[in-house]
Amino acid sequence: MIIIVKNGTPAEEITRISQELHDTWGLTVEKSVGQNKVVLGLIGETATLDPMQIQNNSPWIEQVLRIQKPFKRVSREFRHGEASQVVVPTPNGPVYIGEQHPVVLVAGPCSVENEEMIVETAKRVKAAGAKFLRGGAYKPRSSPYAFQGHGESALDLLAAAREATGLGIITELMDAADLPALSRVADVIQIGARNMQNFSLLKKVGAQDKPVLIKRGMSATIDEWLMAAEYILAAGNPNVILCERGIRTFDSKYVRNTLDLSVIPVLRQLTHLPIMIDPSHGTGKSEYVTPMAMAALAAGTDSLMIEVHPNPAKALSDGPQSLTPEKFDRLVQELSVLGKVVGRWSTPDQRSLVALGSV
Amino acid sequence: MIIIVKNGTPAEEITRISQELHDTWGLTVEKSVGQNKVVLGLIGETATLDPMQIQNNSPWIEQVLRIQKPFKRVSREFRHGEASQVVVPTPNGPVYIGEQHPVVLVAGPCSVENEEMIVETAKRVKAAGAKFLRGGAYKPRSSPYAFQGHGESALDLLAAAREATGLGIITELMDAADLPALSRVADVIQIGARNMQNFSLLKKVGAQDKPVLIKRGMSATIDEWLMAAEYILAAGNPNVILCERGIRTFDSKYVRNTLDLSVIPVLRQLTHLPIMIDPSHGTGKSEYVTPMAMAALAAGTDSLMIEVHPNPAKALSDGPQSLTPEKFDRLVQELSVLGKVVGRWSTPDQRSLVALGSV
Amino acid sequence: MIIIVKNGTPAEEITRISQELHDTWGLTVEKSVGQNKVVLGLIGETATLDPMQIQNNSPWIEQVLRIQKPFKRVSREFRHGEASQVVVPTPNGPVYIGEQHPVVLVAGPCSVENEEMIVETAKRVKAAGAKFLRGGAYKPRSSPYAFQGHGESALDLLAAAREATGLGIITELMDAADLPALSRVADVIQIGARNMQNFSLLKKVGAQDKPVLIKRGMSATIDEWLMAAEYILAAGNPNVILCERGIRTFDSKYVRNTLDLSVIPVLRQLTHLPIMIDPSHGTGKSEYVTPMAMAALAAGTDSLMIEVHPNPAKALSDGPQSLTPEKFDRLVQELSVLGKVVGRWSTPDQRSLVALGSV
Amino acid sequence: MIIIVKNGTPAEEITRISQELHDTWGLTVEKSVGQNKVVLGLIGETATLDPMQIQNNSPWIEQVLRIQKPFKRVSREFRHGEASQVVVPTPNGPVYIGEQHPVVLVAGPCSVENEEMIVETAKRVKAAGAKFLRGGAYKPRSSPYAFQGHGESALDLLAAAREATGLGIITELMDAADLPALSRVADVIQIGARNMQNFSLLKKVGAQDKPVLIKRGMSATIDEWLMAAEYILAAGNPNVILCERGIRTFDSKYVRNTLDLSVIPVLRQLTHLPIMIDPSHGTGKSEYVTPMAMAALAAGTDSLMIEVHPNPAKALSDGPQSLTPEKFDRLVQELSVLGKVVGRWSTPDQRSLVALGSV
Repeated sequence: MIIIVKNGTPAEEITRISQELHDTWGLTVEKSVGQNKVVLGLIGETATLDPMQIQNNSPWIEQVLRIQKPFKRVSREFRHGEASQVVVPTPNGPVYIGEQHPVVLVAGPCSVENEEMIVETAKRVKAAGAKFLRGGAYKPRSSPYAFQGHGESALDLLAAAREATGLGIITELMDAADLPALSRVADVIQIGARNMQNFSLLKKVGAQDKPVLIKRGMSATIDEWLMAAEYILAAGNPNVILCERGIRTFDSKYVRNTLDLSVIPVLRQLTHLPIMIDPSHGTGKSEYVTPMAMAALAAGTDSLMIEVHPNPAKALSDGPQSLTPEKFDRLVQELSVLGKVVGRWSTPDQRSLVALGSV
Repeated sequence: MIIIVKNGTPAEEITRISQELHDTWGLTVEKSVGQNKVVLGLIGETATLDPMQIQNNSPWIEQVLRIQKPFKRVSREFRHGEASQVVVPTPNGPVYIGEQHPVVLVAGPCSVENEEMIVETAKRVKAAGAKFLRGGAYKPRSSPYAFQGHGESALDLLAAAREATGLGIITELMDAADLPALSRVADVIQIGARNMQNFSLLKKVGAQDKPVLIKRGMSATIDEWLMAAEYILAAGNPNVILCERGIRTFDSKYVRNTLDLSVIPVLRQLTHLPIMIDPSHGTGKSEYVTPMAMAALAAGTDSLMIEVHPNPAKALSDGPQSLTPEKFDRLVQELSVLGKVVGRWSTPDQRSLVALGSV
Repeated sequence: MIIIVKNGTPAEEITRISQELHDTWGLTVEKSVGQNKVVLGLIGETATLDPMQIQNNSPWIEQVLRIQKPFKRVSREFRHGEASQVVVPTPNGPVYIGEQHPVVLVAGPCSVENEEMIVETAKRVKAAGAKFLRGGAYKPRSSPYAFQGHGESALDLLAAAREATGLGIITELMDAADLPALSRVADVIQIGARNMQNFSLLKKVGAQDKPVLIKRGMSATIDEWLMAAEYILAAGNPNVILCERGIRTFDSKYVRNTLDLSVIPVLRQLTHLPIMIDPSHGTGKSEYVTPMAMAALAAGTDSLMIEVHPNPAKALSDGPQSLTPEKFDRLVQELSVLGKVVGRWSTPDQRSLVALGSV
Repeated sequence: MIIIVKNGTPAEEITRISQELHDTWGLTVEKSVGQNKVVLGLIGETATLDPMQIQNNSPWIEQVLRIQKPFKRVSREFRHGEASQVVVPTPNGPVYIGEQHPVVLVAGPCSVENEEMIVETAKRVKAAGAKFLRGGAYKPRSSPYAFQGHGESALDLLAAAREATGLGIITELMDAADLPALSRVADVIQIGARNMQNFSLLKKVGAQDKPVLIKRGMSATIDEWLMAAEYILAAGNPNVILCERGIRTFDSKYVRNTLDLSVIPVLRQLTHLPIMIDPSHGTGKSEYVTPMAMAALAAGTDSLMIEVHPNPAKALSDGPQSLTPEKFDRLVQELSVLGKVVGRWSTPDQRSLVALGSV
């Protein structure tokens, strides 16, 4: 943080400010004297200070400017410029998520409805090339009267699908009390957009071992999102994936959210963490999922999360944005063509896809 | 919800759609035949349905329109057009919050720092006319490295301030695990903006007896905010106060948030619940608090929440938006002049203020 | 603007950067050397530079920070902290708009429909205390098929209303070609929200003598709005009024725009120009106009613009947000009570209101 | 538009409403009687009506719903579901822009600075495969003190670049008075984001023959944007291209705007007009241009507009978002690989690129 002092500030006032900053916040002050202006550089723990608090110390202070990024462990510099990878052990073997690896597909329904539908969906998305099954046991719904997920019994169904297919499981945690039960099934724990700044929950998933997928809040800035991830890393868990799922803007007539794909190059510069894009929530309409998934892959995403439901018209939640398994097959086929030319496609997946005869 | 069917839809398709809607969601369909269009009205539980799910049932469906509000218990109609009041028992006697009552002042620091500061602040804001002391024991902070509140020990300090002054206590709950300890001290439990859609937490405060103050999320629509309140009422607790604290918009250079005062007349039409406005968070700068508090009172708010700190420049959080006790005295004096002409001022408060000699 | 140079930057690189900045943009560079950092202050015309352009000059530049406001003539400092006033000569005498004067009321229909309606409305709003009649001859409409205003013939009707009542006329200019005709009738020329950054038009109204009312663009930042006003002042016309009419946010279900009343204290600090608030466009619903007008007055606005139409249900545009003359009478009555206690009410207005017997 | 009437509305009130709607707006009313509700369908010119105006007609009206899109000539239905193409005659031959054609590249500097730089840039971007040179003669700048473009003399330089390379010219029109001069040089006339709702200007470019590129306003909804295009078509000019250049959201720390790529599939459904994406303005930083251009192509854009400047660090405007000619060569190379697999690449371009030896 630096302070710009007004022209004509008495030397003793500068001394007084420096003393005050030292006494109150333990900061060391480094003075730079120019012809017209004096600039004070503040050395010490400034990340938690509000520039206005500094400004309030003296009427001679013209402006206070923050010059450091508020996050540390998630920053690219923290790893000396290198990307990190999240390695998730699944029954089918470890899955690597990160910029040096092929794009990883996550697919499945919004919520787990019954055993047949979840196992069937898991088999279909596995055959198409997905590495993870997504499916909600606990669902955050705007209305208390809407279907809230089948809860713990849905976790058993996810376990069955995991056993049947070997896919890793990604499912959302809404309440810390559910963490033990959920951890028995989930390979990756999802923190939803609405809980992105539920700091109690972040601390708890930071204090356990499973990788965490953190969705961007509806109106979270990039800095706030990275700081939410920082909570998890600061609590001891380095395995975090950042998932963009659309932000709230002024126009939601045709899309439910505005999918912000520019986060891909922006996050690449700022952080070492892997990136996932969710074009299903990001647009809210199944017919927009394919073009936006293609765009995300072209822009460099490390992973894609796609809603797939065997019968979207009858889904208990989010039907309008779900693909049928057949449409998901076609999407993967299109992605594979693109993924190969940009060097982000895993050849074995293709083989299984061809084996299925769905291409 | 109503369905508009395309021109020329075969009669058997309409019958099929009606049957499908009945079988899948238990809806009764009421057909209205016009010259060019057929309109189907859906009778039954449509609040939890997404119009797109209906639309997916047939290519002959032109459009599906929701015509009912998604909330019930919080709606003004639920009380036949009458406002509700929240009555909070405090050591100084019951405090009434609602549109038939004088405006209620809530004041205090962002976070509880030590016993002297919180007791002293409580005495000062009580003398000025406040009915509640606000103060955070648990603080939601963007950074894991920022001061997170003194936690349970701060609750003891709030209890001391309550005993010393008789003021009611409003403090924020971030984690359901803290509810028992917090309930021993708080007269009103606050749910912060970041947890407005933490549905697990909403259900828990809905299942206990203390009144709940629910802050609007940074980018929550009016409907989402009312639905969050609906979660609390649906769980059994009718004592909910809605607090506007500024929304996120495209310009935050001069104000931290955009205080949306139009919620006052909008909420009045939609809901019976009492309204509180927080101009301190709503603007983020102490010099804007007075004009916006005046504006809120003129627009008809039932309550105001104001940050007051004995030494804002040294506050551990939110110093820049806090008033000193002296400035709070002057604010109350200005509010009293306006409050009297709009009929929302309580005379006895004035007496104590005069007694203090601060006017 | 200041440049923060990375630790360890060679002295010759700093010299090179300084030379480059001097040669390319004529800037003088003032070096401040601290223990770890070197800060370069740039002296000269930096208002038009993008910090990124500076940053591109050397990989040793860590950060470039703008420390000056981008506007000059509209800034409060330009008048040494004093507010300006706009004095508008009208047939009824000069009207003063500014923070030292009583609040000025502007009222009338969205668009001029016929002579009877505009003259009748003018008489009614004058009787209630308005100093200006507003009414559109040229209407900016989203649809090319919507009523676009009666154009030049409507200007004649405004002239008739002016003659009949002595009220000043405020009407919108959309096309520079209409300026001569419009100037013959208008006492204040309005630039609408959609043309706030139509810089050609701003230059033209800056080069003539009539006062200009500039509405804030739907998503204009405070800085952009002030810079638009700066265009007019820079072109030679110092008589500018700033009118807030609601901004675009994520929720427009219940209000058409979000009326941002915090601009009142913010603009007070930044600029000397007078402030007007338009709660009719700002909310889009007549039932919200009164509370928001009251709030604006309580927050310190210098002027209010209110839509009034003799028969809102049949208005050719903006009916839903228009008050009837009777409702406008009641609004003025409420405003007068508040205006008196905050010292912003003109007594003679009250007399004419009482004379009319409408209170 | 349809009206939903409250339960229990007297038959004579329905008759009265129908008569009123007929008399005031010439609408025919078609009544559909259900068991509990009566729905009135309105036949006639409802596009220009505000639902609230209808609602104001009777207290028995429960809700008024618009069921038609507000635009006509730009709608996909207007061409029976087929896309249109814009054919632009250039010295190098006609260029086709539309979904059946290879992606068209537009490149060049933000503003025309001098003859050497614009001719040199034109040669470089032509060699890389661009079909159009972009370059501003008139520049909309937030500040009146910023470089405003060289105006008419810059048009001569664009003419020289056109003659030297045969590229088509795209340049912005800010003032109708400049139309004759600009038309002598421009092959496509650009309407900038700030003038998207300058309806006077839209009418004028609609009344001439050159194709028009209309950029989306910073906070324009899809409907408003299409309505702006509708103004041009309604005035007689069917050759319109829609250009997305980023919208304004709550976070602009790392990107200047949020590039909304979901407009690509959304516009495809709604309109027959060709689509262009501008990732340079859309992100504001040159290092984000390549990933976002790739994403746009993968999502199906018909055209890309890229800022290219021979020396971005010294550009008079928008330097930070400009590519050097070398980086543009590499971008085109990356695009070509992707463009070929998605079937949107023109082979001859590739040949000239190879001839240049720049790949």
